[in-house]
Amino acid sequence: MPTTTREIHLAARPVGWPEPTDFALVPTELPDPAGGQLVVRNLFMSVDPYMRPKMNDVKSYTPPYELGKPLYGGAVGEVVESRVDGFVPGDLVLHGLGWREHALLDASGARKLEQIAGVAVSHYLGALGSTGLTAYVGLLDMAEFRAGDTVFVSGAAGAVGTMAGQIARLRGAKRVIGSAGSAEKVAHLTEKLGFDAAFNYRDGHLFRQLADAAPDGIEVYFDNVGGDHLEAAIGVLNVRGRVAMCGSVSQYNATEPPPGPRNLSLAVGKRLSLRGFIVTDHYARFPDMIREVGGWLRNGDLVVAETIVDGGLDKAVDAFLGMLRGDNTGKAVVRLS
Amino acid sequence: MPTTTREIHLAARPVGWPEPTDFALVPTELPDPAGGQLVVRNLFMSVDPYMRPKMNDVKSYTPPYELGKPLYGGAVGEVVESRVDGFVPGDLVLHGLGWREHALLDASGARKLEQIAGVAVSHYLGALGSTGLTAYVGLLDMAEFRAGDTVFVSGAAGAVGTMAGQIARLRGAKRVIGSAGSAEKVAHLTEKLGFDAAFNYRDGHLFRQLADAAPDGIEVYFDNVGGDHLEAAIGVLNVRGRVAMCGSVSQYNATEPPPGPRNLSLAVGKRLSLRGFIVTDHYARFPDMIREVGGWLRNGDLVVAETIVDGGLDKAVDAFLGMLRGDNTGKAVVRLS
Repeated sequence: MPTTTREIHLAARPVGWPEPTDFALVPTELPDPAGGQLVVRNLFMSVDPYMRPKMNDVKSYTPPYELGKPLYGGAVGEVVESRVDGFVPGDLVLHGLGWREHALLDASGARKLEQIAGVAVSHYLGALGSTGLTAYVGLLDMAEFRAGDTVFVSGAAGAVGTMAGQIARLRGAKRVIGSAGSAEKVAHLTEKLGFDAAFNYRDGHLFRQLADAAPDGIEVYFDNVGGDHLEAAIGVLNVRGRVAMCGSVSQYNATEPPPGPRNLSLAVGKRLSLRGFIVTDHYARFPDMIREVGGWLRNGDLVVAETIVDGGLDKAVDAFLGMLRGDNTGKAVVRLS
Repeated sequence: MPTTTREIHLAARPVGWPEPTDFALVPTELPDPAGGQLVVRNLFMSVDPYMRPKMNDVKSYTPPYELGKPLYGGAVGEVVESRVDGFVPGDLVLHGLGWREHALLDASGARKLEQIAGVAVSHYLGALGSTGLTAYVGLLDMAEFRAGDTVFVSGAAGAVGTMAGQIARLRGAKRVIGSAGSAEKVAHLTEKLGFDAAFNYRDGHLFRQLADAAPDGIEVYFDNVGGDHLEAAIGVLNVRGRVAMCGSVSQYNATEPPPGPRNLSLAVGKRLSLRGFIVTDHYARFPDMIREVGGWLRNGDLVVAETIVDGGLDKAVDAFLGMLRGDNTGKAVVRLS
């Protein structure tokens, strides 16, 4: 077992868009595990939008990252040393100590993974991980999706968006519409992932593009973006429409509060519901999601969209910044080993 | 039976705040009832915020009022002629043809009222009518109020607000907070209606006043106002807080869309739900509301707040304009006879 490893620290709190200098790659000791602990060699780590607001020094639903301390987040890795019954070297585990090459952690923070044929290890960070669960819970439980609904997903080419749109399709949506930030992503949505319509919000006229894509309105809006997308969606939502509020990636780097949806009062007459949620409240739905999404994966009904950044931990900050810019299609992960 | 009567027509569609010249008091024939019809002498008519947006020529959840035609809305009256089995002169009925001294209507549009000791006739337009049902459904079904919740009601001195705050108190709220537009209303809320705290939003610093009144945050926000009140409420809502979106009286006379709540993205981390609703979808809850609210009325636990405008139909437009300005405390009704 190695005695040193490397990890990425938050060197400065970003103001607006993060800069590479806000991060530091730091060599560090790797102590021997105590009783009840594992050492894991990380194979893949996740870079996610939620990590950006955690870099601000503000009280939120989870504590902020600490300055001068390592970042953390979803990772999969291989046990290299175990002082826990039931874990042996070679076991594959999912855990929350990404942003480092090796993780020393209590066994309670690790979930052992079964390798499923046709399911890549990295998918446990995406389609079969928190990302898939976010899409599943948001669509089915928060937005109360029903077969026959027309669904609009913003940030549709992102990690959660690619899953939400496909789950809607596989669950019998009448029509699935996505917005994304480039022509390539739009093509990916309609040609590879089975979206019925998609558009590039950077082309402008957001409301017009959405209204054209949804001539009969929509029942469900899966909101990954916030801001003007939510306003456009409220405009086309039909009576008793439902919004799952999953994130506001358009706002995470804003230094001024963005305008709210000016048409929110339409929610009264349209009887809309809007529900915000955080996936960590919904881990009880993991088995349902794994069963259903796992089945679609095995059958080839669901296409995993994934952007793997190679180059190890040295590339993790670039991968994170690229994800914030929207360079990725689907889940963005960094191959660490 | 009289052969003529008077009614109020929409003479012009208001732009911004309505003017008296937007209305016309018109004498009209009162035909004999056909089979299945009643003639009702109206005793009280309701003036309500929802009537203002119905004066605009825009598609909404109900059709707009027609130009040059009579307005309509809730009224209680006494049957003066009946060609319907089961209705006789002298019966008291609730119906939807206010804004006129006599109503000719199909019996299907009338509900016969039982006079309950201690319940004034006008209360069937307020506490025991659609107003009471709006408060009941909004608080209990939309905002899923539970005993122990702290509740904030905006427009708290209005028809729905006075009821929503009291239902919360009687159902075991930890703390009931109201906002209103004058010092007199604020005093009425805390001294007469049992609100734990209230403030005058016209004093400014809306968020500060609300945060001071709710040092431990709130679980439920009953929104009668929209706009900046909703933004302030989102700021103090606790995790898993719930908003019943009942109306946006602050916006009904606006000619520009008002800003939306800039902090709506907090709904994600706070797991907020916001639900718009229209009382007409919830008439199935009338019996529950009548039973529970009627009981509180009989016991004297619930104080009916009511502003009765005397002077007959000639004063109806003044009463409506006064209600829009917030002159009323509680339910605003016009005594017609």
